[in-house]
Amino acid sequence: MPFGSYWQREEIMPLNQLEELRVKRLRWVVRRAYDNVPFYRKKMREMGITPHDIRRIDDVVKLPFTTKDDLRANYPFGLVAVDKSELVRIHMSSGTSGKPKVVAYTERDLENWINMVARCLYMIGVRKEDVFQNLVSYTLFTGGLGFHYAAERIGAMVVPTGTGNTEKQLQYMVDFGTTAIHATPSYALRIKEVAEEKGIDTQNLPLRIGCFGAEPWSDNTRKRLEEAFDLKAFDSYGLSEMNGPGVAFECEEQNGLHIWHDHYLVEIVDPETGEQLGEGEKGELVLTPLTKEAMPLLRYRTGDITYLMGFDRCSCGRTHPKIHRIIGRADDMIVVRGINVYPSQIEHVLMNLPEVGDHFQVVITRNGSLDEITVRVEMRDEIFTGELRDFSRIRNNVMRALQKELNIRVNVDLVEKGTLERFEGKAKRVLDLRKEL
Amino acid sequence: MPFGSYWQREEIMPLNQLEELRVKRLRWVVRRAYDNVPFYRKKMREMGITPHDIRRIDDVVKLPFTTKDDLRANYPFGLVAVDKSELVRIHMSSGTSGKPKVVAYTERDLENWINMVARCLYMIGVRKEDVFQNLVSYTLFTGGLGFHYAAERIGAMVVPTGTGNTEKQLQYMVDFGTTAIHATPSYALRIKEVAEEKGIDTQNLPLRIGCFGAEPWSDNTRKRLEEAFDLKAFDSYGLSEMNGPGVAFECEEQNGLHIWHDHYLVEIVDPETGEQLGEGEKGELVLTPLTKEAMPLLRYRTGDITYLMGFDRCSCGRTHPKIHRIIGRADDMIVVRGINVYPSQIEHVLMNLPEVGDHFQVVITRNGSLDEITVRVEMRDEIFTGELRDFSRIRNNVMRALQKELNIRVNVDLVEKGTLERFEGKAKRVLDLRKEL
Ligand SMILES: [Zn+2]
Ligand SMILES: [Zn+2]
Repeated sequence: MPFGSYWQREEIMPLNQLEELRVKRLRWVVRRAYDNVPFYRKKMREMGITPHDIRRIDDVVKLPFTTKDDLRANYPFGLVAVDKSELVRIHMSSGTSGKPKVVAYTERDLENWINMVARCLYMIGVRKEDVFQNLVSYTLFTGGLGFHYAAERIGAMVVPTGTGNTEKQLQYMVDFGTTAIHATPSYALRIKEVAEEKGIDTQNLPLRIGCFGAEPWSDNTRKRLEEAFDLKAFDSYGLSEMNGPGVAFECEEQNGLHIWHDHYLVEIVDPETGEQLGEGEKGELVLTPLTKEAMPLLRYRTGDITYLMGFDRCSCGRTHPKIHRIIGRADDMIVVRGINVYPSQIEHVLMNLPEVGDHFQVVITRNGSLDEITVRVEMRDEIFTGELRDFSRIRNNVMRALQKELNIRVNVDLVEKGTLERFEGKAKRVLDLRKEL
Repeated sequence: MPFGSYWQREEIMPLNQLEELRVKRLRWVVRRAYDNVPFYRKKMREMGITPHDIRRIDDVVKLPFTTKDDLRANYPFGLVAVDKSELVRIHMSSGTSGKPKVVAYTERDLENWINMVARCLYMIGVRKEDVFQNLVSYTLFTGGLGFHYAAERIGAMVVPTGTGNTEKQLQYMVDFGTTAIHATPSYALRIKEVAEEKGIDTQNLPLRIGCFGAEPWSDNTRKRLEEAFDLKAFDSYGLSEMNGPGVAFECEEQNGLHIWHDHYLVEIVDPETGEQLGEGEKGELVLTPLTKEAMPLLRYRTGDITYLMGFDRCSCGRTHPKIHRIIGRADDMIVVRGINVYPSQIEHVLMNLPEVGDHFQVVITRNGSLDEITVRVEMRDEIFTGELRDFSRIRNNVMRALQKELNIRVNVDLVEKGTLERFEGKAKRVLDLRKEL
């Protein structure tokens, strides 16, 4: 039940109360991990600590990290802290290699999760009058069911279309009067493209809210999405290890993502040393879920790069801190000639150039002992006049802009609109051909 | 919350109380349709009736029928009886031609639906200790989310795999210790086949319960499914127009499907004349949902052929009547030389022949002015010796058995195992080549 313009009272909990709650919950979750998960008991014993050593939030640094590899190594239920009969849901993220990462939920975990996603949706204005079309995969991926349950809880009319069949998706938007969508940004841009082909004017749809997640995207992409559909676009952040979506979300300000501080303990650490970093310092996001019964992960290394935006009260009134939108996902990071490159940096640059279309691909090759990056970029039809001089000018613009951002020389291939592959889920932007040598 | 060995107290409601409840609900739903759906008000006025004319269950015959075409013609929300803001879910069944059939739900409809499917699952022994793998499509198809929510409500561990990726599905069954599955019978048989290829012994999996639906299947297929996975196989019946699955379901007796009499008013009618038929008489199942808020359909023509099995109290103690498993779906019916043939009749015959494998296809061609049926049948590897004499013997056996059941001459093509297409959802058994002429 909503609490004024908030979904839950906890969203505006005074900071001192919130802090008290967090300490209580941290101690609870550490005790739970220690008592019920041999993996953590062993680790903590090796480090010479017990749950009694965790008394304040700052004590979190005494705890061991948990990595994605730990999850894989404990496949499927090695990190589960409850009897299997208490589990009511399984989700998985398969990743590109090795065993999948399994996550498990108790009934209470699901309740918490539904309410966290509902907080996000309510925060950006989704109400029972809305028609919410959920254009992401259902089944084992957390994005589908995560948003589905939350939008339903709010009472919106949920249209569970999933991905695929883009023409029909568009037809449903028209026929059902869809007002809010959830998709990856790349699939949304694909939908716009199909609409253009079909002569459907996406600016005249009744859409007013878009939730975009699963891949990092920039403010320049926001502009494109908002223009394409005449809606307000919000960044959604989550990962299945932390339930799924609903970990952090932009509010109406569209300036940073509130992270639900009563459910997640946030740290930013140096990815190399694991040292905690301060406000404003860029590093790896490390999360300790404070309420998870089924899988109480301690100091989980998300691999995602961001920074804490400071604890000033946001104009929306929420007392939960904000993180900057994800700058790069460690999983996506490319190392080329010793320099770290995130596809999201490339996206940021390209989406700011009016000559460039909505789709690109990053190809990495090895030329002798030298790695090379080639960015294949689709042009925008209406910009390119067809003249060679024009072509060279655009190509040089793109190259210069990329080099400025990445501090590395890149090749640029301009290609015609429609050349590159389209994606309905998370876009696969990087083609690393070095691995095949 | 379970009520002894029943999910809900209503399952064993004394007949007189149940009847009282049904009358009350019938009057409520008719009033609702009349007041809120112009389509029904118009129809009832044309027939010269008002809600006041419906006082007893028998008065249902005074009401107009609703057909699948009515649903299509009123796409998307023409039959909805509530304000759009009260809807929380949309499902669809696309069918082969024309506009899709949209069904809509209020929050209360979902609650009722979840509990009806939970009744079914609880009835066949699914408990919170079970691991329930849901191997059907999610998103717009009702089968996926329908079972998902119900198994979760019971507290089973739901593994929402959906269809596809059959090898991984098998791996999950092993890794998660799946005890209950939901699939189409044809997909289950496909899974068994893949298991054989991979050397996984499906009889040694911890499976004990299988729910099979979306296509009609016979007791002979039951034997095959039960043998293949060493489980107990139960027939699941439902259709999206009646919420989805959970309309009727076999109990432990495996002899007829209890249809939830407090939520659906059941009639069997002559498909030609629409006249009500008596107990034991085969005809078309007509359902009037008694509790649907969003879409109060009156006397919905399901197109499915079955009969009422009589009101004797079942050994399971439930007071709700049983229907015979679906004999044929009107949508699947083939008319060949003036004779009605259901693919389910062919399935029934074939699955009883030990020489015949698990997969078949029905091809209909026009030879001059004469329609011909050819049944393509996969043989079982281990039966066929490879000798021509053997081959002819089997072929003649199959042909004779089919002609006896169908009263029509059919051609039989024996094909090697693995020749025919496999399906992950509802199998497409019939290839009607007449339409292409
Ligand atoms: Zn805010
Ligand atoms: Zn029974």
